[in-house]
Amino acid sequence: METSRPLDSLNQSRGKRVLIELKNGKQFVGILQAFDIHINVVLDEVEELENGELKRKLGTAFIRGDTIIIISPQ
Amino acid sequence: METSRPLDSLNQSRGKRVLIELKNGKQFVGILQAFDIHINVVLDEVEELENGELKRKLGTAFIRGDTIIIISPQ
Amino acid sequence: METSRPLDSLNQSRGKRVLIELKNGKQFVGILQAFDIHINVVLDEVEELENGELKRKLGTAFIRGDTIIIISPQ
Amino acid sequence: METSRPLDSLNQSRGKRVLIELKNGKQFVGILQAFDIHINVVLDEVEELENGELKRKLGTAFIRGDTIIIISPQ
Amino acid sequence: METSRPLDSLNQSRGKRVLIELKNGKQFVGILQAFDIHINVVLDEVEELENGELKRKLGTAFIRGDTIIIISPQ
Amino acid sequence: METSRPLDSLNQSRGKRVLIELKNGKQFVGILQAFDIHINVVLDEVEELENGELKRKLGTAFIRGDTIIIISPQ
Amino acid sequence: METSRPLDSLNQSRGKRVLIELKNGKQFVGILQAFDIHINVVLDEVEELENGELKRKLGTAFIRGDTIIIISPQ
Repeated sequence: METSRPLDSLNQSRGKRVLIELKNGKQFVGILQAFDIHINVVLDEVEELENGELKRKLGTAFIRGDTIIIISPQ
Repeated sequence: METSRPLDSLNQSRGKRVLIELKNGKQFVGILQAFDIHINVVLDEVEELENGELKRKLGTAFIRGDTIIIISPQ
Repeated sequence: METSRPLDSLNQSRGKRVLIELKNGKQFVGILQAFDIHINVVLDEVEELENGELKRKLGTAFIRGDTIIIISPQ
Repeated sequence: METSRPLDSLNQSRGKRVLIELKNGKQFVGILQAFDIHINVVLDEVEELENGELKRKLGTAFIRGDTIIIISPQ
Repeated sequence: METSRPLDSLNQSRGKRVLIELKNGKQFVGILQAFDIHINVVLDEVEELENGELKRKLGTAFIRGDTIIIISPQ
Repeated sequence: METSRPLDSLNQSRGKRVLIELKNGKQFVGILQAFDIHINVVLDEVEELENGELKRKLGTAFIRGDTIIIISPQ
Repeated sequence: METSRPLDSLNQSRGKRVLIELKNGKQFVGILQAFDIHINVVLDEVEELENGELKRKLGTAFIRGDTIIIISPQ
């Protein structure tokens, strides 16, 4: 039942560009550097998007897992 | 009392198309690839719906379990 | 003190029709197939109600426990 | 320090009529049949009240503990 | 570091009148009979206040800890 | 990695005046008497502030940790 | 799978200036002195920002982890 696990799938996105959407509606795109079982995430080359437009650049960002809704490889 | 468990039922939808509704009202349809005991889910061929209409396609998506209300096989 | 436990009571509704109300105000009626200690629930023959009227039919549905307020046998 | 514990006090209401108020403002009155350490509760002869008036009768109801604010014997 | 602990301080209010404020803004005054590590509380001679005025009397009340903001001896 | 821990830092404020801000926007100033790993806190000589003005005095107050955003020595 | 962990990444910001954004929209900039596995954080030389402008200075601040969305080195 556990041969295919969500964190294994997430691991395949390590080093790749992902889109992350938060509970407050914010969207970030960046390179997935690290994550843990709480889905705490570290992104590099982070861009915050608003309506698909670049809002600001953040360099590296630690995002607390309990604020995340969805992580999708770009 | 545990002969029929919710996660066993969910396991029968693995590899099949499911509808997922989130606490923020968003709806996603996709192929259920993986889930864990937190109900973290990985979907493939993901489509986000709005009022039953396709809003966007996402490829693969990791959805954090604590944002999910309902998962229903299509 | 634990001779009568809530999950034992819920177990008596297994295979029977129940009404489930969620924190977001949604109401579902269906046959209670499975539940676990988190009150994750699987219903069959699911109907979503709105103001007592049928809104849609869902077949089977996995409902995440932390969204549930009340489960009442019909 | 634990000679008088909240769950012991709650246990004295078993089999008696209690008022339960939820985080969403709903009020239920019924016979307390069972509860557990999560304060999941089962009531019998349940009546939902609105502004002190009977809104509907529910028979038996399982109420998830994390939705409950207060339980008071009537 | 743990010589003075919050629950020890709370224990000194046992049998005394306390004011409890909840996340939903409600205020209760009563005699603190019991509490546990979740800060579940049992009050006796409970009065609910609104803008400092008595709104209703409740006798005994079990208050779930995760709804409580502050407990202050009167 | 753990040579400097947040609770050690908090411990240095024991017996001193701190400002505490809650998730609901309330502000309290008082002497930090006790705290635990949940960040449950006991303050003495408590003053509730509103827009920097004294709103009321509370004597001693137990504040549940999960309502706290920030604690800052004054 | 765990060779690169989010807390290791966060540890590289110790002693450096970081931007922290909270669930309630508040922004703080300060020197990261300490954090733990709950992402409880202690900042020094804290400045609260509003629309990029300095709102107030706080000296040292303990920020409870469950209020934090993002931590980004400046």
